[in-house]
Amino acid sequence: MAEYVKNTWYPLAWSRDVTGELSRHRILERDVVLYRTAGGKVAAMEDLCPHRLLPLSMGRLKGDAVECGYHGMTFESGGRCVRVPGQSGPVPDIRVTTYPTHENMGLVWIWTGDRELADPDLVFDLPEYHSAAWNVAEGDALRIEADYLSLADNLCDPAHVNFVHLSTLGNEAGEDVPVSTELRGDDLVTWRWINDAPAIPLFAKYGNFTGNVDRWHYYHYLAPSIAVIDFGSLDTGNVNPEDHRDEGMRIFACHFITPVDAHTSIDHWLHVKNFPADEATNKALSDEFRIAFAEDKAILEAIQINELAHPDRRKARIAIDRAPIRMRRMVKQWIDKDVPPQQAPRVLDKVNA
Amino acid sequence: MAEYVKNTWYPLAWSRDVTGELSRHRILERDVVLYRTAGGKVAAMEDLCPHRLLPLSMGRLKGDAVECGYHGMTFESGGRCVRVPGQSGPVPDIRVTTYPTHENMGLVWIWTGDRELADPDLVFDLPEYHSAAWNVAEGDALRIEADYLSLADNLCDPAHVNFVHLSTLGNEAGEDVPVSTELRGDDLVTWRWINDAPAIPLFAKYGNFTGNVDRWHYYHYLAPSIAVIDFGSLDTGNVNPEDHRDEGMRIFACHFITPVDAHTSIDHWLHVKNFPADEATNKALSDEFRIAFAEDKAILEAIQINELAHPDRRKARIAIDRAPIRMRRMVKQWIDKDVPPQQAPRVLDKVNA
Amino acid sequence: MAEYVKNTWYPLAWSRDVTGELSRHRILERDVVLYRTAGGKVAAMEDLCPHRLLPLSMGRLKGDAVECGYHGMTFESGGRCVRVPGQSGPVPDIRVTTYPTHENMGLVWIWTGDRELADPDLVFDLPEYHSAAWNVAEGDALRIEADYLSLADNLCDPAHVNFVHLSTLGNEAGEDVPVSTELRGDDLVTWRWINDAPAIPLFAKYGNFTGNVDRWHYYHYLAPSIAVIDFGSLDTGNVNPEDHRDEGMRIFACHFITPVDAHTSIDHWLHVKNFPADEATNKALSDEFRIAFAEDKAILEAIQINELAHPDRRKARIAIDRAPIRMRRMVKQWIDKDVPPQQAPRVLDKVNA
Repeated sequence: MAEYVKNTWYPLAWSRDVTGELSRHRILERDVVLYRTAGGKVAAMEDLCPHRLLPLSMGRLKGDAVECGYHGMTFESGGRCVRVPGQSGPVPDIRVTTYPTHENMGLVWIWTGDRELADPDLVFDLPEYHSAAWNVAEGDALRIEADYLSLADNLCDPAHVNFVHLSTLGNEAGEDVPVSTELRGDDLVTWRWINDAPAIPLFAKYGNFTGNVDRWHYYHYLAPSIAVIDFGSLDTGNVNPEDHRDEGMRIFACHFITPVDAHTSIDHWLHVKNFPADEATNKALSDEFRIAFAEDKAILEAIQINELAHPDRRKARIAIDRAPIRMRRMVKQWIDKDVPPQQAPRVLDKVNA
Repeated sequence: MAEYVKNTWYPLAWSRDVTGELSRHRILERDVVLYRTAGGKVAAMEDLCPHRLLPLSMGRLKGDAVECGYHGMTFESGGRCVRVPGQSGPVPDIRVTTYPTHENMGLVWIWTGDRELADPDLVFDLPEYHSAAWNVAEGDALRIEADYLSLADNLCDPAHVNFVHLSTLGNEAGEDVPVSTELRGDDLVTWRWINDAPAIPLFAKYGNFTGNVDRWHYYHYLAPSIAVIDFGSLDTGNVNPEDHRDEGMRIFACHFITPVDAHTSIDHWLHVKNFPADEATNKALSDEFRIAFAEDKAILEAIQINELAHPDRRKARIAIDRAPIRMRRMVKQWIDKDVPPQQAPRVLDKVNA
Repeated sequence: MAEYVKNTWYPLAWSRDVTGELSRHRILERDVVLYRTAGGKVAAMEDLCPHRLLPLSMGRLKGDAVECGYHGMTFESGGRCVRVPGQSGPVPDIRVTTYPTHENMGLVWIWTGDRELADPDLVFDLPEYHSAAWNVAEGDALRIEADYLSLADNLCDPAHVNFVHLSTLGNEAGEDVPVSTELRGDDLVTWRWINDAPAIPLFAKYGNFTGNVDRWHYYHYLAPSIAVIDFGSLDTGNVNPEDHRDEGMRIFACHFITPVDAHTSIDHWLHVKNFPADEATNKALSDEFRIAFAEDKAILEAIQINELAHPDRRKARIAIDRAPIRMRRMVKQWIDKDVPPQQAPRVLDKVNA
C-alpha cells in the first residue's frame, strides 16, 4: 500500500473525454465514475453500487442521475439514492461517496480528501496556457506501471535526457554538465544550461538554428502531481541567456500525474510553446514527445519490476539524486503532517532569477 | 476456499461432449477426467496419476482403461492400477479416486460425496423435458468467473431482468412490480407477474401477440446447483392468468451450475418450451439467450472483482434480496449439517397454486 | 525458493547468440547481462544497475564497458564503475557483480559460486563433439516451466520414451523391458536395450535398416545440469551388441540445463552423431527432436502445475523411479555439503563395460 498526499487536487482525466456517458477511472486505489451533467459540470462518484458492488459505470445515466445496471438503484449526482425499483415505502437512506471536481488546463481535477478543504482556487494553473501569445497542444494519458514517486523522480531529473532521449530531446552534448536544484517556496526547481552546443534533434527539426545554441532545462515540480519542464534553445552568444529565453524556442512541457495505485500512474501531458505551429506540426511534435515518453515508460516499468524483485537492495546515490531525494522528503512531510501543498496558479518564469 | 454442499449430484458436462476420448473437467476444486466406456457408461476419475501427478487426461484410453501418458501406468475404470510397465512382480495396490456418475437431461451428473449415498433416483429431472408436447434446445457451458452462490443470486432474482436484459428478455414495463418469494419444500420459488404490458423483445419476435400480454417469471431454485425459470407470456385478459400459462408461450429455462472453484462456475443452460420451432428458430432463440447470459456474466464477473477488492464493504440490502438471502441461508445449513438436499424429479407447474 | 548446487559451471546461452550487443539472461534467480568484448571474451554481469536498478541490458556498450541507459553510469567488464556523468571528483567505488565464463561445445558456461573455485578445466566436454568422425547439429534453447530437477528426472528415464515419443523416438516395442541404473563415479547411468525389434520412427526414416534392430538408450546424467543420451540402433544379431554401437546409427543427444528459477528451466540441446548428414537432413532431424522435446515440455509443465496445486500429495513410487530418486539424492548431497561435482571432460563410451 502506497501513501499519498490526502488533501490536494489531483488530475484525473482529460476534460475532452468526460461527456454525457459514464466513464470509469481510478485514482489512489479507488474507482471513480465521471460524467458531465446537463448543466456541464463534472460529477464524480465512487464507482461502486452500495447494493451488490457492481461498478456504477456499467449502468446508465438517467438525466443527471446514475442508474445501476443490475437492479436499477438510482443515485443523483450528489450521491443520494433516489429510487429502489420494486420496493415500496420511502427511499432508504443509501449514499454513494462523491468527490469535488474542477476543470482547468483541459483536465478534470478531483479532490478525494476532506471535502471542506476543497478550494478550486488552489488548482494549479500556468498563465501562459491562456495567453494568445502561446500555443497549446494536448497530449495523451500515458499509463505507466510505475508508482507516482518513481515517475516524479524522472520529472526532477534533467540529467537522464542525454541518455534516454537521444533521438528526440537529447544529444551527447553536456552529459557532464552538473545540475542545480533549489526549493523556491513549494516549487522544487532543478535545472541546467548546456551552452554553445548543437541543437537537439527536436529543435534542429523545427527551429531555424544555423549554428550552436544555448539550451536550458528547468524542471519545476509541485508535489505531488505537477511537473512543468521549461525547456528551449536560443542562438548562443548572450551574456545572460536566461533573460532571453523568450527570444528562443521555448516549451513548457506539462506533466500532470494521476497516482492510480501503488504500482501504476497516469501521465497526462501537454505542451505550451511560444512559437506558432499548424495542426500537422503540433501532431508531429506530439509524436516526438510520444517517442520520448515511451522511452521513460520503458525505463520506469523495468525499474519497478526490479524494485519489487529486490526489495532490500540498497541503491547507490550520485550527484543527480539530490533533487529526487528532496522531492521524496517533501512528499513524505506532506503525507505525515497532512498539510496541503500550495499548487495555486503561478508564473514560473523567474524561478532562477 | 469456498464451501460446498458435499452429498449431492452436480452437473459436470454435456453428455454430447463425453465420448471415447478422455476429457478434462473441474468441479469443487478438483480435476476430473471423463470418458465413455465401450458399454456406454460414463467413467469419472480424479485427473491425476498417482505416480508423477500428470493429468490422466493427457494419456490414452486402452479399452476401458486409462494409460498415463508419461510411463504407461494403467487404471481400469474402477480406479485400480492394472499395469506398471517395466516392473516385474504383482501389480502394486495403487488406486485413483473414481466418482459415481449418472446421465439425465443431456448432462453428466457427478457425485463427489460419500459414495454409498449416491442414489441416481435423486438426480433432478423435469418431466416436460421428456414429453413429446415440449421442445428441447440444448445450450452451452458458459464459464463465469464468479462463485456459484453469486450465480445463484442471479437465478433467484426476476427483478434484474428489467435492467440487465433490455434487448432480449426484459423491457421497462413492470420495473416497480415487487417480487414474491416462498420456500415450497426444498424449492425456493421467486416470482412476479407483469400484466397488461407490451411483450418483451424475445416474444415480440417469435410470438404472434397483437396486443398487450401478461408476463410471468417463476424462478425455481433447488440448491445448490439447479435453477429452472418458468417464464412466458399470454394475451392479457384472463382472470387467473396463472392457470392459463400453457395457453401462452412458455419456456422452462434450465440452468445447471457446476461450482468449479471458489471463483469460477459453469452454467449449463438449455430451454424446454411449449411451442414448436425448427432448427433455425431454435438456434436463433439460443443466440438470444447467449446475449442475455453474456450480460449476466459481465455483471457477475465485475461484482466478483469488486467483492475481492473490498472484502469488508457491507452491502445495502433491499426488498428484492429476500430470495437470495434465503437461498444462501439454505445452502449454508446444508453445508453445516451435511444433509443432502432433495433434488429428485418434480413437476414445477403448480408451485404457486 | 529452490535450492541449487552452488559451485559448478552452468550452461547459460548459445555462444552463437552472444555478440557485441548486450543480451539478458536469467539463471539461479538472478538476471545476467552477457556481451562479447572486442577481444572475443564473454563478459557476464548482474543485470542490475546499482543506482536505480535498471537492467544494464537496457543500456549501451561503449567499447568493452556498459553504460546504463538511464543516467549513463558506466562499468568496465570487470564490474568497476568508471564514469558517473555530471558528477565531479573521483569516480565513486561502486561495483557490479561479475561472473566467470567459459565457452565450450557451442555454449557459454557461467560460474556463479565462489570465484576462486572457477576452474575452466572442469567444464564438461564430450570428445566426440570435436572429432572429425562425428557430426554436430546445434538445437534450441527450450524454455520449460518446470524446475530443473523435474527436467532431470526426465533425463534419467529411458522408460518414458515408449509412452511420450511414439511418433519420433519410441515405439511400443520394449515397453516392459526393465531399466538398469548405476553410479559410475559421478556419472549416473541408466540404460536398457530393446533387442530384435522394429526400428523407431526416427531411425526407420533416416537409416537403411531392412529388418529388426537392437536399440540402446544410455542416459548419462552429470549433476546438476548435464545429460547426455547415448542412443542408437544396429542390425540385430550381434552377441554383444554393446561393443558394436559404433557400427550402427549412434547419437549423443546432449541436454545442458539452465536452472532459471524455482519453476523454470532452459534446455540447451544438440546432437552429435556418427553418420553424415547434409544441412537439410540435420534440420529435419532437429525438427524431429523439436517434436519430441515439445512433448516432454507439455508433460513437465502439466506436472509442475499439479505439484504446486497438490503440495502434500504423496507420489507412488515404481521401479523406474530408482534413477531419478538417486539423482535427487546426489544433488541434495552436493547442495548440503557444498562439494563441487566433477563435470570434467570424459569419454562416455565404456560406461557399461
